[in-house]
Amino acid sequence: MQDRLDEVKAQVQAALQEAMAGLPPGELADAMRYACIGGKRIRAFLVMESARLFGIADEAALPVATAVEALHAYSLVHDDLPAMDNDDLRRGLPTCHVQWSEATAILAGDALQSLAFGLLTDARIGPAETRLALIDAFAGAVGARGMVWGQAQDIAAETAIEPLDLAAIKRMQQAKTGALIRFAASVGALMAGEDAGPLTEYARHLGLAFQIQDDILDLTGDEAEIGKRLNKDGTANKATFVSLLGLDGARDKARKLVRNAESALDPYGEAAENLRRLARFVIERDA
Amino acid sequence: MQDRLDEVKAQVQAALQEAMAGLPPGELADAMRYACIGGKRIRAFLVMESARLFGIADEAALPVATAVEALHAYSLVHDDLPAMDNDDLRRGLPTCHVQWSEATAILAGDALQSLAFGLLTDARIGPAETRLALIDAFAGAVGARGMVWGQAQDIAAETAIEPLDLAAIKRMQQAKTGALIRFAASVGALMAGEDAGPLTEYARHLGLAFQIQDDILDLTGDEAEIGKRLNKDGTANKATFVSLLGLDGARDKARKLVRNAESALDPYGEAAENLRRLARFVIERDA
Repeated sequence: MQDRLDEVKAQVQAALQEAMAGLPPGELADAMRYACIGGKRIRAFLVMESARLFGIADEAALPVATAVEALHAYSLVHDDLPAMDNDDLRRGLPTCHVQWSEATAILAGDALQSLAFGLLTDARIGPAETRLALIDAFAGAVGARGMVWGQAQDIAAETAIEPLDLAAIKRMQQAKTGALIRFAASVGALMAGEDAGPLTEYARHLGLAFQIQDDILDLTGDEAEIGKRLNKDGTANKATFVSLLGLDGARDKARKLVRNAESALDPYGEAAENLRRLARFVIERDA
Repeated sequence: MQDRLDEVKAQVQAALQEAMAGLPPGELADAMRYACIGGKRIRAFLVMESARLFGIADEAALPVATAVEALHAYSLVHDDLPAMDNDDLRRGLPTCHVQWSEATAILAGDALQSLAFGLLTDARIGPAETRLALIDAFAGAVGARGMVWGQAQDIAAETAIEPLDLAAIKRMQQAKTGALIRFAASVGALMAGEDAGPLTEYARHLGLAFQIQDDILDLTGDEAEIGKRLNKDGTANKATFVSLLGLDGARDKARKLVRNAESALDPYGEAAENLRRLARFVIERDA
């Protein structure tokens, strides 16, 4: 799996560079490229591996994986803004608004979202109807019913009198990080015109497990290795999976979710082994 | 023309409401709806009238007009942010971040951009290939080669040592406001698979004339009627068409541009009369 993840990383990095080649030179383009440096590329991996399950060539899936990572990069840039999570470190580098300015960070995020949608029109992806189905699902996943709604809930929770309970945190995370992860994992089925049910089920468990591991690492991880500020949630007195379940309870829950994620892939047999490995990797990672 | 503009306003307002019906209730959805209140709907009018030129039904063009206005609303919300133009009044109401919060304004803008792209997948627009061509052109117009690039230039000019010269202001405005106006005016030709040359030429002149009239109104207009703060450019010691050409020179230039815009529509004869009237309206308006 690690080899395939490295391969996807290299493919996506090259595709992002290509998509941004020929932008008018200046701070905006520089900030957009800066925002796309690094990252685990888990979402791109989900796109490429779910496509492979249905016999779809890397060449066809790559523009979609690239769009997903461009969109993810925009969401991180905006989430890090002073008016949002106010973070100064991301992927081991100063955040975009620290490196450039708030205005440039807002605009770079905005332009990365436009870029992401533009990438989904790429003819290499396949028939026009397929591309439109992807764009429609993508718009739903990242907008006011999905990712942005989740981020709004997360921000609102910081100033709320009562911390979120477990059900509310799950709902928030299933939107904030889950919606894009579910989209990424279901791309193969969407492109093949097949039932996305098992992949969506897999991604639902995977997304939560990923978030729980993030909460665990926020408490136990190494800042230099992870490349962002840690223990911010504790300082903000914010409810997390760890604050609600305890460290051991959170670890148990994450392991259970990973087993559920693996089982959801039963219909695909051995072909889904990389996706199962990813699920285990998600809770074993220390960065 | 005024009747048609009123009709388009009503159609777009209803379509925006419909597109945002069923959003999860809360501040995010409220702020998105708030950002879509009012406006002259000139861009929607351009879409609907350019479509009509090619015999395209209102029903097919309306989702495109709605997408253009949703995108425009997002751009105003982000442009008004404290880190950008820092405006507190827009369309006669407190700006989005004043009414809600900076975080909510950033997120509402983000979600309106996603919504705009989603609207362009509407099957009523026509064949899949047509919708993809529109999405591709739209992504180009509003992203890092178009609108967002223009806004970045505008922001950069505020802190630059030398004010922009006439050529640089034209280039900036042809991106910041011009790119979306050119897209809107060319929609009919794009949907009909015809040459968009004359409409793009028309929109190029129209967009500049519109901007010059904005600069004139910034100096001579009535704040209550226009619904936004005026004389900000003068205070910021920012180069504008008026500061570079003088008030009379700017008025002459705008009139000349409108004549050019009208002539560009010669190939369409009488059918383009509403678009010609719009061009004249753009420099006669006092709000």
